[in-house]
Order: sequence, then C-alpha cells, then structure tokens
Amino acid sequence: MNIKLCLSFDGSNYHGWQRQENAMTVQQKMEEAIKKLTGQNSAVIGCSRTDAGVHAIKYVCNFYSDTKIPINKIPIALNTVLPRDIRINYAEYVDDSFHARFSAKSKTYLYLIWNDPISIPFLARYSYHFPLKLDTDKMSKAAKELVGEHDFSAFMATGGSQKSTIRRINYLTVNKDGSKISIEINANAYLYNMVRIIAGTLIYVGCGKLSENDIKRIMDSKNRVEAGITAPPHGLFLKDIFFDE
Amino acid sequence: MNIKLCLSFDGSNYHGWQRQENAMTVQQKMEEAIKKLTGQNSAVIGCSRTDAGVHAIKYVCNFYSDTKIPINKIPIALNTVLPRDIRINYAEYVDDSFHARFSAKSKTYLYLIWNDPISIPFLARYSYHFPLKLDTDKMSKAAKELVGEHDFSAFMATGGSQKSTIRRINYLTVNKDGSKISIEINANAYLYNMVRIIAGTLIYVGCGKLSENDIKRIMDSKNRVEAGITAPPHGLFLKDIFFDE
Repeated sequence: MNIKLCLSFDGSNYHGWQRQENAMTVQQKMEEAIKKLTGQNSAVIGCSRTDAGVHAIKYVCNFYSDTKIPINKIPIALNTVLPRDIRINYAEYVDDSFHARFSAKSKTYLYLIWNDPISIPFLARYSYHFPLKLDTDKMSKAAKELVGEHDFSAFMATGGSQKSTIRRINYLTVNKDGSKISIEINANAYLYNMVRIIAGTLIYVGCGKLSENDIKRIMDSKNRVEAGITAPPHGLFLKDIFFDE
Repeated sequence: MNIKLCLSFDGSNYHGWQRQENAMTVQQKMEEAIKKLTGQNSAVIGCSRTDAGVHAIKYVCNFYSDTKIPINKIPIALNTVLPRDIRINYAEYVDDSFHARFSAKSKTYLYLIWNDPISIPFLARYSYHFPLKLDTDKMSKAAKELVGEHDFSAFMATGGSQKSTIRRINYLTVNKDGSKISIEINANAYLYNMVRIIAGTLIYVGCGKLSENDIKRIMDSKNRVEAGITAPPHGLFLKDIFFDE
C-alpha cells in the first residue's frame, strides 16, 4: 500500500529533508523509524527538499509498505520511535500513483521576522531577528509586483538545476503583528532558495536599501545579484501543501 | 546608582535564577555580563528564584553601580555580552530603596499546556504536552475556588521555608485556544512550587482525576498529597511583575 503521512518538524537540528552522507536529515530519521516499526526498508518520498534549519508546520511524504498496523495507529506508533522534534500528525492510504513531490499542485511557505532592536529568546530558533525598522507598507507593495507568472531567475541561488525558471506565485502577503512580521507565499513550485531570496529582497525594500519600484527591474534583469540577501533558514516554515484531487 | 533591569529569558538551559555551586544560572550570567561591561563586581537582586527550566517573559532585577554608560544604552550593551537566551529589554534608574524582590506587590505567571494526542515540535520547550482531553470548563470552576486569601499549605512543595502559608490570589483563569490551554495567575506572593502544583491540580480536575468540588477539601486538608502533580517547569513563564508606585 501507498501510505501518505503529514508531519511537523523543527529543522534546527537537521541538515534539511534529503538524505546525506555525513549529516543527519529528516528523511533518514523517517526511514529509520519506519524500519523499526515495520521491519522493512522503505524509501520515503518527501514533498520538498528543505534547506538545513528550515522548519515544517505541515510536510507531506509517502512510502510503500504492506505493514499490518492499522492506518490510524501509524502516527502514534511512529511518534514513539521518532525524536521529539519530528511529529507525525496524520496517515492515510492513497492511490499508488500518489507521489508527495510530483503530485503537489502548490505549496505555502511562511517567513517569520522579529522586527525589534531587541530579539526575543522564545522565537530565536523560529524567526529572523532584524533590528532595523521595516516599512511593511512598502514591503506589501513590492510583494504585489511578484505575484503572477514570471521568470524568477533573479530569485534563484546558483546551484538550482531546474529546466524552466518560470513559476506562478498565487499570492504573497506581508503582515505585521506588533514586532512580528509574517511573509506568506503560495506558488505552484519554487526555484532553489526562491522563498529566502524573496524574503531577503522584501526586507531590503522594508529598510530602504531597495524601492518597491525596483522589483520589476530586478525580475527583468534575470540576475541574482540585483535581488536582496538570502534570508536565513531558521525564519522559514513550510506551512501547507496542496495536491490534485 | 540603583539600576533596574527588565529582561526575558528562555530557562531551558539554566538551573533557575539563583547562583549555585555547580550549575549555570541566570543570575551568574547576569553578574558576569555586568562585570564585563562595568569592570565592577555587582550583586544582582532578582525578583524571584525560579526553578530550573522555568522561563521569563518579564523578569525584573536590580543592581548598584556607578557606571558612566548612559542608562538607555545599557540594554543593548548588556545584550552584546549576554547569551542569546537572555535579553535585556529595558533599564532605568530607581530609588535606592527599590529591591526587585521585596518591593514586588504582585506577580503574574502563565502556565502553557499543549492538549492534543500529538505534541507540536515548536512548543516542545515552551509548554507541557498533556495528551488526554482536558475539560477547561471544569478547570475554570476549580480555579475560581482558589481565588482569594487562603492558606495554601496543600499547594506547597516540601522544602519551602516561608513563615506564613497564607497568600492572596487576585485572579486565576483558564483559557483554551485550539489545543493550547493557558493558565494565568496573579498573586501577592507564592509558596515554593505553588504555581506548578496549582497547574497540576487543575490538570487533574480537567482529566477527571479530581472534581472541581474537591478544591475546598484539598485547601482545608493543608496536606500536599491531596493536591495534584507538580506540573513540569518548561510550561511555566513569569509573565509580569508589579511594584509599589
């Protein structure tokens, strides 16, 4: 059977999702846990590579197994063998054709900024502390320029291997709640480091290093150096993922 | 001059506020930071001992110093030498008679519970994961019984050295927001482990191990064993502190 899992993880202690030779990853922890539970080796397919340190509120993966464990018991059973910074929230049987990565229609990311001269200890692992005052009205205007189908080459880190650099951003919003600024983005797919570069560029607009009117020029340049910094990974959360019905 | 500081700390890595021989405490970190900054040894007076692992959203301390650093620069200057899990938010000169502990009129604590079969990684350090469903209506009714001036002997851990066991709870509320339950309490002063034993007793009421009608009997018993568990420290936050004008 093809089993789909929804999980959350705190990425602080992991080198991202994807298995690596010399570093601990979420995929490795998941495959070890499934092996312990079912006695079988299963390759776990993730919905997205994530960078080291990036978190997930809702991540989806799938694996094939003929385990006899009832599907509704699988989350609790896996949680007993997983470290506490990875939690399975839900499991269900899905069609054999379901593939956590290729079946995804869109994904939503959240980028959290703590915008105050003084950082807050409880959000140190879960937000980017930016001490200079950010103008969120300007950031919102800049965000609107990015929505739609565009060539996002200027917002892709070198090392990206995608064939096409055209992506469709369905929405991109900037919200302020006291010192907490949330950037939320939904797109059909993403280029390498695209969300973190967009966050870094909006931060540059917010502190006046770029203008909201620069966005179109940056996109047209197709040149990474025209955009802002790559915002650090610990402010980034995969928040939701949508599949074809 | 007598300098008052307001600070926040993540207590996860500390054995509470008060200096100890063989364990790192927040007081020690504060005194080391002030020594680095001013070149002088200063004893720092804290508003409260806190248990190992307990957090503070707003903690107040004071120390005497003739440092020439402008008072409004002291928070940022101290933050550069403090670890990131301790942050100074505010500093001001106060009357020589001000004493962070003895001048306190009341303190507010918050106890956070994550009430869901599955824990959430991002709150693992900052809440008590309690998987069985809690009835917050019953918890609220029990909380009301504790408000007012009472002998709280039954809610004091052995080892408390207070002369009187009478305290006045000004308010004690239980609020539910999805899976997050917040217990908030304001009292003139507290007995040893009193908030954590009250939280543990309300949890016992919420899951049916005790009834809301047992509270008066427990108080009258003046016997610690009649009350509930001592809830773990990582769900507890010192939230606010009020002084005489």
